[in-house]
Amino acid sequence: MYIGIDVGGTNLKAGLVDEAGKIVAVERVPLDFQGPEAFAATLAELAGKVLREGVQWVGVGLPGAVDGGDVLFTTNIPMKDVPLERLFRQHLDLPLLLGNDADCAAAGEFFGGAGRGTRDFAVITLGTGVGAGLILNGKLRGGLASSEAGHMVICKDGEPCNCGRRGCWERYASATGLIQQTKRAMEAHPESALRKFAAERGVEGRTAFQAAEAGDETALAVCRQYVEYLASGMVSLINALRPEVVAIGGGVSAAPEHLLLEPLREAVAKESFSRHGGRATRILPAELGNDAGIIGAAMLGRVL
Amino acid sequence: MYIGIDVGGTNLKAGLVDEAGKIVAVERVPLDFQGPEAFAATLAELAGKVLREGVQWVGVGLPGAVDGGDVLFTTNIPMKDVPLERLFRQHLDLPLLLGNDADCAAAGEFFGGAGRGTRDFAVITLGTGVGAGLILNGKLRGGLASSEAGHMVICKDGEPCNCGRRGCWERYASATGLIQQTKRAMEAHPESALRKFAAERGVEGRTAFQAAEAGDETALAVCRQYVEYLASGMVSLINALRPEVVAIGGGVSAAPEHLLLEPLREAVAKESFSRHGGRATRILPAELGNDAGIIGAAMLGRVL
Repeated sequence: MYIGIDVGGTNLKAGLVDEAGKIVAVERVPLDFQGPEAFAATLAELAGKVLREGVQWVGVGLPGAVDGGDVLFTTNIPMKDVPLERLFRQHLDLPLLLGNDADCAAAGEFFGGAGRGTRDFAVITLGTGVGAGLILNGKLRGGLASSEAGHMVICKDGEPCNCGRRGCWERYASATGLIQQTKRAMEAHPESALRKFAAERGVEGRTAFQAAEAGDETALAVCRQYVEYLASGMVSLINALRPEVVAIGGGVSAAPEHLLLEPLREAVAKESFSRHGGRATRILPAELGNDAGIIGAAMLGRVL
Repeated sequence: MYIGIDVGGTNLKAGLVDEAGKIVAVERVPLDFQGPEAFAATLAELAGKVLREGVQWVGVGLPGAVDGGDVLFTTNIPMKDVPLERLFRQHLDLPLLLGNDADCAAAGEFFGGAGRGTRDFAVITLGTGVGAGLILNGKLRGGLASSEAGHMVICKDGEPCNCGRRGCWERYASATGLIQQTKRAMEAHPESALRKFAAERGVEGRTAFQAAEAGDETALAVCRQYVEYLASGMVSLINALRPEVVAIGGGVSAAPEHLLLEPLREAVAKESFSRHGGRATRILPAELGNDAGIIGAAMLGRVL
């Protein structure tokens, strides 16, 4: 048995997870960050609530970068170069394993989702950014080797990215990129139905897909262009690493299959090097949804 | 001890290689391809010439794609779906390990060159194309997982590539790409000294570097642009995989350091995600030169 803790934007969720990747108990507390020492104590306390005889480690997934048991930085809470495992062990004598969100998603899907039965597997998470978690030869590219494949360039000298480069894949293929593309299309085509679908909650990642489903041509063009951007980086990743499966997760992945996954598969098949021979990569939806964080964190010890 | 055989364009070279990656004996025969069966017999005969007590396997490096002991295809000789190990073993009862050129370069440099002491290592070979050999967590991405990182896109909808995509890194960062860039600059600037350096042997990969060394501004601009292209794909690869070292090999890598490696390192440092924290990748020249093929083929069994 393992414990997985998902450090979200507002909550800490801990789960007791069995060897098959099933959550058998969950506890949560609000995220109330009062410094690294108190945070480590909270993690230990929360883990204690689901702890049972035979638990081998506590895995923690958080947005940021880690190196072994140290947090290099986090993006939602102010931690920098924090020896989190050392602080945690003052409260609970279990190994603390750390992974970033994307890496945990990969670990979770590898054992309990779209990556089952593979050795070479990637999860691409389409959210605020483009997260990438890679499991190659059965081992996570975690810690210092954690992938930032969202920051592969697809358009040299293209749109400026938060990372400082121009033209990063993430800039075009994230929900953020899609929202910007949708807004631009609305401005250029004020007659489009996009405006109606955005009226209530503003433009979201789903807006273009909703309007396209309703038959709006402008929205359909936005979706097609978006899939092309998504495919461009995806093919680069696939050509470089030749994984067996790439799973697509994150908010955008909820889009209708005929507007997202189907045309994505077509574009990838048309462009991938594998059409000259060798392994063709399958593209699947991620399966674990909201549980990916807990399950993936719990499974870190199996792939590190 | 191991035997490594390098299948080149005109010769087969076999070497007896010790555990430290040193060649202790070499034999060669002209490449005279008379079909897969005869080829397998020739490999066995050549291996026999350097064979000693205690040799554990014969590794073969060839341009193409492999899957275990099978050749999927080769680009210099007409082989397709050939069970080469099975044919070979009819003549010599030793395991036959197969790798493509780029993978062998990575295996060789990993043990005997620029990758010594690392676990996560890439070799980028700048020749007719851009070859990529990856060793991650001490294991080669070989066989069906062999990298085609040269076919990551850097310019969406850019120059057409032989692979069928547009804008592939290889199209810009190979010697072939550099030669085309040099020719275009010569046409646009007929007054440039490039013409003089190309007079005798035509435009080669080295031409722009030679003219730049002599102070020609047009040539210098070609070199700078080329390094920018090279850096673009290199940063994408580095961001996706965070290796400890990337070694640069192939003909172009012989260019003067202040025109190639130094500005490349600067551009990569400026653009890589690692400047936000985590592992920074070192860029080094490959060390093995012409011996890389033999040594790398011999070392395949240590990384597969």
